[in-house]
Amino acid sequence: MKLVLFKTASDALLPGLLTDRGVVDLSARVPGQGHDAMVWLIDHFDGVRGELEAAAARGPATPLESVRLAPPLPRPRKILNAIGNYWEHAQREPKPLNMFLKNPDAVIGPGDTIRLPECTQPWAFMHEAELAVVIKGPAKMVSRENWRDAVFGYSCFIDVTGRGEGRRTWAPGGIMSWIGKSFDTFAPLGPCIVTADEIPDPNNLHVQFWNDGQLRHNYNTDDMEHPVPEIVEFASMVMTLNSGDILACGTNHEGLGFVQDGETVEICIHGIGRMSLRVEDPLKRQWERGIYMGEDSTHHDAVRRHRPQAVLKPTSN
Amino acid sequence: MKLVLFKTASDALLPGLLTDRGVVDLSARVPGQGHDAMVWLIDHFDGVRGELEAAAARGPATPLESVRLAPPLPRPRKILNAIGNYWEHAQREPKPLNMFLKNPDAVIGPGDTIRLPECTQPWAFMHEAELAVVIKGPAKMVSRENWRDAVFGYSCFIDVTGRGEGRRTWAPGGIMSWIGKSFDTFAPLGPCIVTADEIPDPNNLHVQFWNDGQLRHNYNTDDMEHPVPEIVEFASMVMTLNSGDILACGTNHEGLGFVQDGETVEICIHGIGRMSLRVEDPLKRQWERGIYMGEDSTHHDAVRRHRPQAVLKPTSN
Repeated sequence: MKLVLFKTASDALLPGLLTDRGVVDLSARVPGQGHDAMVWLIDHFDGVRGELEAAAARGPATPLESVRLAPPLPRPRKILNAIGNYWEHAQREPKPLNMFLKNPDAVIGPGDTIRLPECTQPWAFMHEAELAVVIKGPAKMVSRENWRDAVFGYSCFIDVTGRGEGRRTWAPGGIMSWIGKSFDTFAPLGPCIVTADEIPDPNNLHVQFWNDGQLRHNYNTDDMEHPVPEIVEFASMVMTLNSGDILACGTNHEGLGFVQDGETVEICIHGIGRMSLRVEDPLKRQWERGIYMGEDSTHHDAVRRHRPQAVLKPTSN
Repeated sequence: MKLVLFKTASDALLPGLLTDRGVVDLSARVPGQGHDAMVWLIDHFDGVRGELEAAAARGPATPLESVRLAPPLPRPRKILNAIGNYWEHAQREPKPLNMFLKNPDAVIGPGDTIRLPECTQPWAFMHEAELAVVIKGPAKMVSRENWRDAVFGYSCFIDVTGRGEGRRTWAPGGIMSWIGKSFDTFAPLGPCIVTADEIPDPNNLHVQFWNDGQLRHNYNTDDMEHPVPEIVEFASMVMTLNSGDILACGTNHEGLGFVQDGETVEICIHGIGRMSLRVEDPLKRQWERGIYMGEDSTHHDAVRRHRPQAVLKPTSN
């Protein structure tokens, strides 16, 4: 099942089901609106599943093109992101899993606009297309064997990032703080939450990302160094995860590129969904277009060597 | 004025005023409970100030010893912490201001318990006593000259920290992620919010911290490298700050020490207030007691040289 929030004419955010026929309004079945309504659905899903399945099959639906979707979780309490979590063909040493916190007020959704900050300290801004895990909590000390207990579903996430130089996340003085990930609007999430039962293996999903139609990210989540069960275990070892919290699984950096004024970006994870956003920059800065092939890391040599052999594995969506 | 949340017998969190006579219940004047009630007070303070002053002077008060205080903001959206923001007598190079995000679900309050995690990866756990700035928002791109526009008040904050080795915050593989700051219960806040009008200069406040009665931190906020106006400017340059968000100003590391099972810790910022908490460790780990004088940093030589000359500046509270 695919759960969404959609905007009414009066800017209310109502819960709905995304079906082949369009969006089925669930607001009469779910208390509250916006973020709270989605958290209610997460917490009560098992009890209302039958009712929702009936609504998905037979409820009145509004065609998707007449609906303005919102991020399915506009106000998460926590966004935890995995750091450098893909092998990327690079001959690098194994690294332990590590995560940082991203500004949870930075969430925007389908059709929204990534606004680059007027702050001139970062060198550039880049996209990172990622699988997002939506938590059902409270979840603490969940072992990797029991990871499914803490996972409600999945969504698409763009970890928009200010860079200090090359691939390095911007931080004043170069002391890594991850603050360059936390500018307003730097956390696009959506278009929906697909419930966990529809994704047999989150580590076999194909992620794609385009910038003005140019393919950038194009990878399968089977290349994660630390797969979803380990991410759930690690995050819940440190802190209690609550319903609606987001775990972003990291990106394959092979497809990195800049985002800049006037562009339209689009993320698709096959089996989850597709969303596009615009980019605005009040300062109208410009960077090269195309996949970033900076010289700041030996990693890029590995990327260049391997890119021609990268195999596209289309999956159904 | 000093604003608090206090617990009722039924565990509701009601807003109140902390006065010399005790706590004056404001729940009849403030809509909502808990975090939302305090955010309402922040957003409507100017309009209700006269009414609150009258209540502070003449409202029925419950003696403080009969009241169980809670953290004044139990569910902030964001906690942003300054990194290494004190000069500490050390002959170090100036550093630009930098901040990281801390788990906002880790907030606890007066009389609560810091629970060390069962996670065995961090080497140790330490206290960092800090001044907390409470935001009145929305605040974006606030210049240091206008910093007061974004500040509602102040509180005491303990940035409890898992260490990897020495003073270094724990992070897997040593790649700094600040995740060692985000264990559950690692963000004690309280006992109250003192409104900004009572603090003429947040960079002239005396911070003290005791562990089982042993003085550890003992410094004045006039030693901040980047004072509160700069912190407000920096944080609001990156992200929109909202009412109830917390900026923690960093600590003077000269007073660092361990926290371990069975201890009672107490923080006091003169002019704001005093709160104590207990420490529990299910693993009953032990570290040396006293101020940490590890050999991991030349900084500590400077501390040793200067500590005898450190001047205690008692202020009224």
